[in-house]
Amino acid sequence: MTVEPSRMLRADAEHNRARILEVARETFAELGLDVSMAEIARRAGVGTATLYRRFPTKEALVTDVFADRISACVATIDDAVADPDPWRGFRGFLEKLCALQASDKGFTEAFVATFPDAVNLDNKRERVERKFGELTERAKAAGKLRADFAFGDLAMLLMANCGIIAANPEHAEATSRRFVAYMIQSFRAENAEPLPPATPFELPNFLS
Amino acid sequence: MTVEPSRMLRADAEHNRARILEVARETFAELGLDVSMAEIARRAGVGTATLYRRFPTKEALVTDVFADRISACVATIDDAVADPDPWRGFRGFLEKLCALQASDKGFTEAFVATFPDAVNLDNKRERVERKFGELTERAKAAGKLRADFAFGDLAMLLMANCGIIAANPEHAEATSRRFVAYMIQSFRAENAEPLPPATPFELPNFLS
Repeated sequence: MTVEPSRMLRADAEHNRARILEVARETFAELGLDVSMAEIARRAGVGTATLYRRFPTKEALVTDVFADRISACVATIDDAVADPDPWRGFRGFLEKLCALQASDKGFTEAFVATFPDAVNLDNKRERVERKFGELTERAKAAGKLRADFAFGDLAMLLMANCGIIAANPEHAEATSRRFVAYMIQSFRAENAEPLPPATPFELPNFLS
Repeated sequence: MTVEPSRMLRADAEHNRARILEVARETFAELGLDVSMAEIARRAGVGTATLYRRFPTKEALVTDVFADRISACVATIDDAVADPDPWRGFRGFLEKLCALQASDKGFTEAFVATFPDAVNLDNKRERVERKFGELTERAKAAGKLRADFAFGDLAMLLMANCGIIAANPEHAEATSRRFVAYMIQSFRAENAEPLPPATPFELPNFLS
């Protein structure tokens, strides 16, 4: 059986593209988003010209690398909203989101990325904002989530989790789990004490 | 009235030294500890040779710049231990320490500094560790602090606070205040839920 040369070329191109994405994901996870395109090309065993032909900017590469992570994040909030127990849905979403953050340095940096356009995928920000709004309203209505929980508190939690992960890479996942468990307790309506006001804290760029 | 030349020289030297420390503190606060000695010399209006004559290494400069901050930190824990109300002493210490962190980027970085020797001032680490141990034992004995609060949870809190400050410089102090209020509630013995285990999380280097 023979294969047309043009189809073989396309298969090669597909293979190369997948390989570059895999290497880029590993490299971002290891070194963060600051790594150079040249370093990614070197690790992938391709020339920089080839890399730039497939991904004209680092933003384009970052977007593709994180597209499935961001989809996973959207799926997580969809699951949380579908949970019949509002508090379990709410706390489960925070746990999963923070675990995702702790498992991947590149993804963590994407949360605070200076590439707002790179991760602007199909208005996913609006979708996550709307769903998170639903999640909190349900949990408040059920009397489980404190009434003064603010949208900015999600950003606050993610930034704090970033600090833990950055300071303590060897134990990032374990320390983050304990930290999130503490935070979830402080979000409970039961015995809530008054808090200083929430600040106009933007949702991190990874969702924009 | 005349002044001996040698005394004038000493007064000049003192003045220069104070000026360098002031400029270095401002520069660390603005840019963090990564700033070069050349930049500090430039801002202080002295030559790099002069700067290095007074402070042979950046570690030496950092130590002197932060000596009074670290003394303030030690005074804060002394006050906390002296508070007749164990819980008020405990929470007050966390509030003040995190506020200190939020008020000064350079100080924040000193917490996670890669200069362990630079901030090794008179075994202050042992002193703070011992006093913090007293503070937590008293608050646990009073039934106010949860029994599973671990020493590493202080480091966890400081690292998380670092993340908030780094991500959100304009609102660092306000967001940090709200964050710390949340954390303190989660440390209360009342209605404490089981937590994932504490990790062997080292106290940040600023106290070593």
